[in-house]
Amino acid sequence: MTGIVVQTIARADPSTIAGLAACGVATVHEAQGRTGLLASRLRPIYAGARIAGSAITIAAPPGDNWMVHVAMELVQPGDILLLAPTSPCEDGYFGDLLATSAQGRGCRGLIIDAGVRDVRDLTEMRFPVWAKAVFAQGTIKASLGSVNVPVLCAGARIEAGDVIVADDDGVCIVPRATADAVLAQAQAREAREGEKRARLAAGELGLDIYSMRETLRKMGLRYV
Amino acid sequence: MTGIVVQTIARADPSTIAGLAACGVATVHEAQGRTGLLASRLRPIYAGARIAGSAITIAAPPGDNWMVHVAMELVQPGDILLLAPTSPCEDGYFGDLLATSAQGRGCRGLIIDAGVRDVRDLTEMRFPVWAKAVFAQGTIKASLGSVNVPVLCAGARIEAGDVIVADDDGVCIVPRATADAVLAQAQAREAREGEKRARLAAGELGLDIYSMRETLRKMGLRYV
Amino acid sequence: MTGIVVQTIARADPSTIAGLAACGVATVHEAQGRTGLLASRLRPIYAGARIAGSAITIAAPPGDNWMVHVAMELVQPGDILLLAPTSPCEDGYFGDLLATSAQGRGCRGLIIDAGVRDVRDLTEMRFPVWAKAVFAQGTIKASLGSVNVPVLCAGARIEAGDVIVADDDGVCIVPRATADAVLAQAQAREAREGEKRARLAAGELGLDIYSMRETLRKMGLRYV
Amino acid sequence: MTGIVVQTIARADPSTIAGLAACGVATVHEAQGRTGLLASRLRPIYAGARIAGSAITIAAPPGDNWMVHVAMELVQPGDILLLAPTSPCEDGYFGDLLATSAQGRGCRGLIIDAGVRDVRDLTEMRFPVWAKAVFAQGTIKASLGSVNVPVLCAGARIEAGDVIVADDDGVCIVPRATADAVLAQAQAREAREGEKRARLAAGELGLDIYSMRETLRKMGLRYV
Amino acid sequence: MTGIVVQTIARADPSTIAGLAACGVATVHEAQGRTGLLASRLRPIYAGARIAGSAITIAAPPGDNWMVHVAMELVQPGDILLLAPTSPCEDGYFGDLLATSAQGRGCRGLIIDAGVRDVRDLTEMRFPVWAKAVFAQGTIKASLGSVNVPVLCAGARIEAGDVIVADDDGVCIVPRATADAVLAQAQAREAREGEKRARLAAGELGLDIYSMRETLRKMGLRYV
Amino acid sequence: MTGIVVQTIARADPSTIAGLAACGVATVHEAQGRTGLLASRLRPIYAGARIAGSAITIAAPPGDNWMVHVAMELVQPGDILLLAPTSPCEDGYFGDLLATSAQGRGCRGLIIDAGVRDVRDLTEMRFPVWAKAVFAQGTIKASLGSVNVPVLCAGARIEAGDVIVADDDGVCIVPRATADAVLAQAQAREAREGEKRARLAAGELGLDIYSMRETLRKMGLRYV
Repeated sequence: MTGIVVQTIARADPSTIAGLAACGVATVHEAQGRTGLLASRLRPIYAGARIAGSAITIAAPPGDNWMVHVAMELVQPGDILLLAPTSPCEDGYFGDLLATSAQGRGCRGLIIDAGVRDVRDLTEMRFPVWAKAVFAQGTIKASLGSVNVPVLCAGARIEAGDVIVADDDGVCIVPRATADAVLAQAQAREAREGEKRARLAAGELGLDIYSMRETLRKMGLRYV
Repeated sequence: MTGIVVQTIARADPSTIAGLAACGVATVHEAQGRTGLLASRLRPIYAGARIAGSAITIAAPPGDNWMVHVAMELVQPGDILLLAPTSPCEDGYFGDLLATSAQGRGCRGLIIDAGVRDVRDLTEMRFPVWAKAVFAQGTIKASLGSVNVPVLCAGARIEAGDVIVADDDGVCIVPRATADAVLAQAQAREAREGEKRARLAAGELGLDIYSMRETLRKMGLRYV
Repeated sequence: MTGIVVQTIARADPSTIAGLAACGVATVHEAQGRTGLLASRLRPIYAGARIAGSAITIAAPPGDNWMVHVAMELVQPGDILLLAPTSPCEDGYFGDLLATSAQGRGCRGLIIDAGVRDVRDLTEMRFPVWAKAVFAQGTIKASLGSVNVPVLCAGARIEAGDVIVADDDGVCIVPRATADAVLAQAQAREAREGEKRARLAAGELGLDIYSMRETLRKMGLRYV
Repeated sequence: MTGIVVQTIARADPSTIAGLAACGVATVHEAQGRTGLLASRLRPIYAGARIAGSAITIAAPPGDNWMVHVAMELVQPGDILLLAPTSPCEDGYFGDLLATSAQGRGCRGLIIDAGVRDVRDLTEMRFPVWAKAVFAQGTIKASLGSVNVPVLCAGARIEAGDVIVADDDGVCIVPRATADAVLAQAQAREAREGEKRARLAAGELGLDIYSMRETLRKMGLRYV
Repeated sequence: MTGIVVQTIARADPSTIAGLAACGVATVHEAQGRTGLLASRLRPIYAGARIAGSAITIAAPPGDNWMVHVAMELVQPGDILLLAPTSPCEDGYFGDLLATSAQGRGCRGLIIDAGVRDVRDLTEMRFPVWAKAVFAQGTIKASLGSVNVPVLCAGARIEAGDVIVADDDGVCIVPRATADAVLAQAQAREAREGEKRARLAAGELGLDIYSMRETLRKMGLRYV
Repeated sequence: MTGIVVQTIARADPSTIAGLAACGVATVHEAQGRTGLLASRLRPIYAGARIAGSAITIAAPPGDNWMVHVAMELVQPGDILLLAPTSPCEDGYFGDLLATSAQGRGCRGLIIDAGVRDVRDLTEMRFPVWAKAVFAQGTIKASLGSVNVPVLCAGARIEAGDVIVADDDGVCIVPRATADAVLAQAQAREAREGEKRARLAAGELGLDIYSMRETLRKMGLRYV
């Protein structure tokens, strides 16, 4: 199962992807039934990035970034690289040269359950990365992995072409097949939240907006 | 001991609270005999916030944020919400809607030994949060906890109405009963530090300012 | 082996040190054969600092910062303090007073495998620190350690006068004796990278620049 | 996607399962191309257990063990319960009463990416558990999860009816569809290893058995 | 608040303490409303110990075990030492000499949110310890702490004379004032559990014993 | 600096090594001024092993155990293998085949700041291992490392031929050059401890044996 590169993948509709980016991680996660989140150990290297794109998946051996080069050829504008090491690792698989190459091909960012380096350059380039660690440790090019096969990354399963949504809250995966439906749910949720936000800002309490008082009383909540 | 909401709590004097905020976490921690610090895993979601306020305490089950709504009704201007889960948890109990509600009621911020989400919105709103994790994982509203009972949070004990001081260094708790005395100590310490800072800036050494040389020599320190 | 202060140390040439700072951690780490990195748990308290300097090493007992005062007297302009606790500790050994003293003596920053406090002040002063934790916990002055002896810190070995390079990627140690040679290697590497960066930015692939395709094919990589 | 209980699942052949148990985790992991391992944080509560069985999967909310009761009804002799919390949790979902029930139904053990309690009783009963933590923290029965749906647990994906292999080395998952083929590979590997073990025990070196010397020389290994 | 030794403390009734030991950590934790557990990082150095006793509390600086000697004088037969460092530490505060002293005075064991050493000797002596780490790192005797003052240890609050219950599941604290009531609850719970255990062993399901089916159906659980 | 194998190393005297094994980790650590300990994350795979031997050091890339085979040829009876990965890794570098080979050559055990597998077999063979993790994850043989060069492992520095002491308390390194002196100190310490142990067992207090009372009083300890 190693040494496979899937060249052709299906992607979600660009407008769907754009819509999911606008909704953001928390809303999308809720909209698809609270699934798809990557573990909280993946943090952005700088604040404020908010992207969505199609996943180019990379399964790579620990400390070996050869497959990133292989994956790069398959990147199309709007894609996001996602790298899952085959065993826990925090080496710096990715730095400014790879970011230059990726950005030149229209890649929107990198999700990596390992380390990243040259973060000052990446920040200046505005190439966003969500990583487990910032670590300059160099990697080698000695062993095969796979590209665009399904991977498990930081507690989620991702197939090539799934939609990745990432912002300051972390990373969420939306399966390609359900991306449109999830977007619809997310936008509906946003609409509902807009109204609630206005009422909350005006001083109404969630206790009243959501009619919680009676239920709480029945469950035994005691005010003293 | 669960399912209790204490409605009326005593608070420290607003000027005392303001004074403690101005002193900051490190000074206040020193001034009360190096006690009251919460564990270093609680980090601010953005740099630069510096607050103090009266604690509204929340004991909540893992993954259940119902009690935050209950607590919100009790928030008065100048209060700070503090949530301690009853077992370790990093779910995202709190996001932009709750922050809108809290800010509308004059709440100065949130301390939570669990996760927070919508951190981009919270940053833009300038609603500061000190949390164990940034994580979008949603929570439910199914079980009771308690509000304004004493809680243990990240290694410290807090009673409702105690003064919470929080800045880039973390979080420190000052019991309400001793807040005035601690403030006096903290301000005295600041005064002393001001003079020392000037001498140190002028090039004097701590070795001389604190007369350490003789003691070090007696203890056996050898210069080679 | 405790209670020793080495007063006179050799330092690398200032221009070598300046050159290493300009190259940065990742390049220097590569240039010396991927050695010298400190563990990724050491993170800068603010983004953007990029320094190099001569190490003043401090071995200190857990929770005791007395030796920092002893070390301060030995700081010369361009030096960097590096503190390794003798057992794991995250207390706040260093704050704004010590930073004032250090900055006044021309110290460029602090590397500490423990905690730091007053980070807001340090950030405003632009005194950079790479630390394991931000924690206000106070320390005492009761026990001896040593200054300018070889120490093990966060997975690396450092001798007084070795060159410390630190930036947003972390911290790297260059032995004084090889600093010139490492700088030459690092600058050569930078030159090579500049050309590659241009080709990558122009759309060439690493697969082609590094002639990887044939090797990958022979190793069995299969495109499907 | 929550609140689903799949009642009928396919299982692998009992003799295949028995064969995989005999091979053990490390061999099975190798035999299926180094896939299927759960994270090393899952440790057995006592040494020496070595089991394989069909997975009954449980997705449970943090701190809520209700679905374990639902799953119990579906256990058939030879099955193994596997519980994945929907967000990180270390509460004690499982203790001696549930173990009594499980053992009475022929359940061979429990895999849980959370906590377990009553471990002294479980050890005496010889009911093996691989868990993230030993923690007595009680759980509630308030929210739905799902049973026998695909879950992600400690870095692996498991479907109901997949074969779980667990021993002192940890836990490995073998998809039901490939269990026979994996067993064949595992047994072939064991046969090969038997011969190698004899040669190694007799003093031959791996360097010679695997003919590594020439390759190492060509790669530049230098004996000094 | 440092440098205090409280010489006279009240203890719970010996028969109450013995009863709590027999119930064990999980049952006692449940019986007092799921409170009092210490964090799961505290693990026994050997399996099978099951003790209860009156707490002699020690607040000690990091890496300084002087107060253990002070506490030893106050140990009475049936007591348990509990040490909370004033900041996170894993040094080996306690070894075979102190265990010899403690055992000679009738001390039943040690709870320590730090390190322990000489664990082979302690195991042979059957002197049980629940610790955060096994670590040989030596400690000093240079600074004061306090004995028999209230401490926060691994997430719980303990006063001198409170009852400590410890077994393979970890450690639970029962306030002295409520020890009799908690014991009564714990024994009642055990009686109830005995009957349930028999029914579960006979093959009845928790679903039926606890009448869960109807509630689950109403909440929307779907069998497919 | 990679790809070096040092074939001839000096070793300490066998009787010195045997003496250090008898003293154990805690005593040896104290005897050499509280230095030489490896981090507490290295734990034995079974209790009761107590060994000392000469270090055969291995620097290995993450996930690559090729150099273990190279090192094996250099093992002489009484040696201990010590493996330090060049970046953090928990893969299972070592299992029963390598242990068979090692044991056949008189190797006394393995120290590894990474993972080990086949721990049931190793336990039955009584081949002791101190490791960071038990993890079955397989490794490859693709890249060079070095053998018998100085390495940094889990916080300590080790040269080939240094004496490794390991028991249930962890691992301690004694430089070969000082092994005799350290043994003498350790044995003297043991003699002193024997007398103290007898007095403590007889009920004397450390407060009196070490004459601490007066110092404590002067420092301000207050009995209340």
